[in-house]
Amino acid sequence: MTQNTKPISVTFDRLSTFISIALARAGLAQADANRVAALMAEADLQGSDGHGVIRLPQYVKRIRSGGINTRPNIHIATERAAMAVVDGDNAMGHLVMSYAVDLAMEKARTAGVAWVGSRASNHAGPASLYVRKPVENNMIALYFAVGNANHLPPWGGMEMLLSTNPIAVGFPAGSEPAIVLDMATTVAAYGKVKAKAKRGEQMPEGWMIDRQGKPLLDPQRAEEGFLVPIGGHKGYGLALIVGLLAGTLNGAAMGRDVVDFNHDHATPTNTGQSVLVIDLAAFAEPAVFKAAVDHLVRELRNSERLPGVERIWLPGEQSHLKRQKYAVEGIPLSVGQVNELSALALELEIAPLV
Amino acid sequence: MTQNTKPISVTFDRLSTFISIALARAGLAQADANRVAALMAEADLQGSDGHGVIRLPQYVKRIRSGGINTRPNIHIATERAAMAVVDGDNAMGHLVMSYAVDLAMEKARTAGVAWVGSRASNHAGPASLYVRKPVENNMIALYFAVGNANHLPPWGGMEMLLSTNPIAVGFPAGSEPAIVLDMATTVAAYGKVKAKAKRGEQMPEGWMIDRQGKPLLDPQRAEEGFLVPIGGHKGYGLALIVGLLAGTLNGAAMGRDVVDFNHDHATPTNTGQSVLVIDLAAFAEPAVFKAAVDHLVRELRNSERLPGVERIWLPGEQSHLKRQKYAVEGIPLSVGQVNELSALALELEIAPLV
Repeated sequence: MTQNTKPISVTFDRLSTFISIALARAGLAQADANRVAALMAEADLQGSDGHGVIRLPQYVKRIRSGGINTRPNIHIATERAAMAVVDGDNAMGHLVMSYAVDLAMEKARTAGVAWVGSRASNHAGPASLYVRKPVENNMIALYFAVGNANHLPPWGGMEMLLSTNPIAVGFPAGSEPAIVLDMATTVAAYGKVKAKAKRGEQMPEGWMIDRQGKPLLDPQRAEEGFLVPIGGHKGYGLALIVGLLAGTLNGAAMGRDVVDFNHDHATPTNTGQSVLVIDLAAFAEPAVFKAAVDHLVRELRNSERLPGVERIWLPGEQSHLKRQKYAVEGIPLSVGQVNELSALALELEIAPLV
Repeated sequence: MTQNTKPISVTFDRLSTFISIALARAGLAQADANRVAALMAEADLQGSDGHGVIRLPQYVKRIRSGGINTRPNIHIATERAAMAVVDGDNAMGHLVMSYAVDLAMEKARTAGVAWVGSRASNHAGPASLYVRKPVENNMIALYFAVGNANHLPPWGGMEMLLSTNPIAVGFPAGSEPAIVLDMATTVAAYGKVKAKAKRGEQMPEGWMIDRQGKPLLDPQRAEEGFLVPIGGHKGYGLALIVGLLAGTLNGAAMGRDVVDFNHDHATPTNTGQSVLVIDLAAFAEPAVFKAAVDHLVRELRNSERLPGVERIWLPGEQSHLKRQKYAVEGIPLSVGQVNELSALALELEIAPLV
């Protein structure tokens, strides 16, 4: 490894401030830029590096291409005691989902449970970002989103009509880290394929298939194939139901209507997301639930391991450890990443990140 | 194939009546026996043959061993506008979940969305049974259950602390069959392993692993290994969150507390299930959603197929076709199955099924 491939560490505050200045310069109102920047930097802080600052150039391009409403009126389109649909008015997805989560938490405090969906939203970063706040407030949260590019055909098909539609679910724990599952419904997320291509590595069998249904191992040929859903037809089913819950139900894009935001920077995406919030206090004393989660976490972690396995992980635990580490040591960014951000800074005529 | 391996067909009514008589004879109140029998026969009608009449001998054994409360007081333990926890009082799971689904539908009609969980419940048959009624009433339903035997270790582990915890989700359609996903969170359900063993066949790679983490192909050796979750750590995560939502949240069994109902017929299982019902009318005109589902179904079904693939299926479509076929032609039962039911009839001193 040469000297200049060593990652460069930046603090959360520095990263967040840089993103905020860039987004405001691109056209967002300052308060909105601050809010989006904090969530993007948080994505990097927890190691969701495919959904943090790496997306900044693309977001800036979309804002400057008129693909984002920079003075949105995010509002409730319809509501009842335990549900609402939020019209995002084509705002940045982070703003729409922050609004939606706050609304769901408020409703869940009285109704016990609440479901809030969005339409006319946009890419909002990693799914797990939106379960954190409920989890910190003694609530369980489930999040469903329609991805912003279709990479998955129905099982047996080869037209990419579905996205890797992610699911995140978060549970508060007591003294253990919260359990947070954040997963795409495909064996590998598309970002992992891109990373393999960058490193010149082959993909393991099972990630992608080609148009003959045969394993595709060369990530350079990714465009000739499709991602494979987890459990075959089961993962296809999961991607479909997440799309129905987050897209169709909210009047948002699904199937062929999904706009590929990697190639089209101007057309409104009409992205849909849904969040379900469950207030623990409606069920029992939250401390009882949290103690049961702690107990279960330890039962699983301390159970007998297969030969060669060093540790049994709980969902969200690795992310939690990264968050602790990066908060102290800074967030590692690759040199290529920093160079890309420097070019963006130059283009926006703002000070570089480092 | 010899003559006597040809399945024997029975009508839904005949099957349901037989089950009802058996359950009442075992000790259930007649009205309860009727209700459980109708749901069990419906499981067979839709092709969920691992969860229908095949379970009757086991249910009868449990009832007669005192493992089921035959005069239960199923009641609401706690509730708010959009949620409730139902205490099943150790009744047959079918009764508890029928009660829970009705309550969730009633609450969803006003609150828009409702979540109802159960504790002190029992095995309730196939997950998809409980999304049908909401779906027929312009509602979306999600169902989560803790399985009644642990066959799944955490990822990297070999202590079976988790069950194949199933998920079912149903969406109403317009003129197309409803979309109904019903899946275990493992590549294969344990019932499929048992079926392979019965037929003397090997399992495909990927269903089970042994205590070295190596593929286990011989179903006769199933006790030496574990089921494999879909997508590896992802399926483990799904099984865990389903267990938390259906078990822990409701104060029901989860992890090491799960009673293996195949080997223990007397200890109350404290089974937990949860159902989420979403009333389409709260979101928009239900006809709009249903037309969008029809459109999506056709888009997927008519999309380009991989070589050799005859048809792209939607979740629930094969089950729908079976239901139509069996309603006309009768429900096929294997000779072995019929013989087992004849033995049960003899034991209970009731008329045999055929």
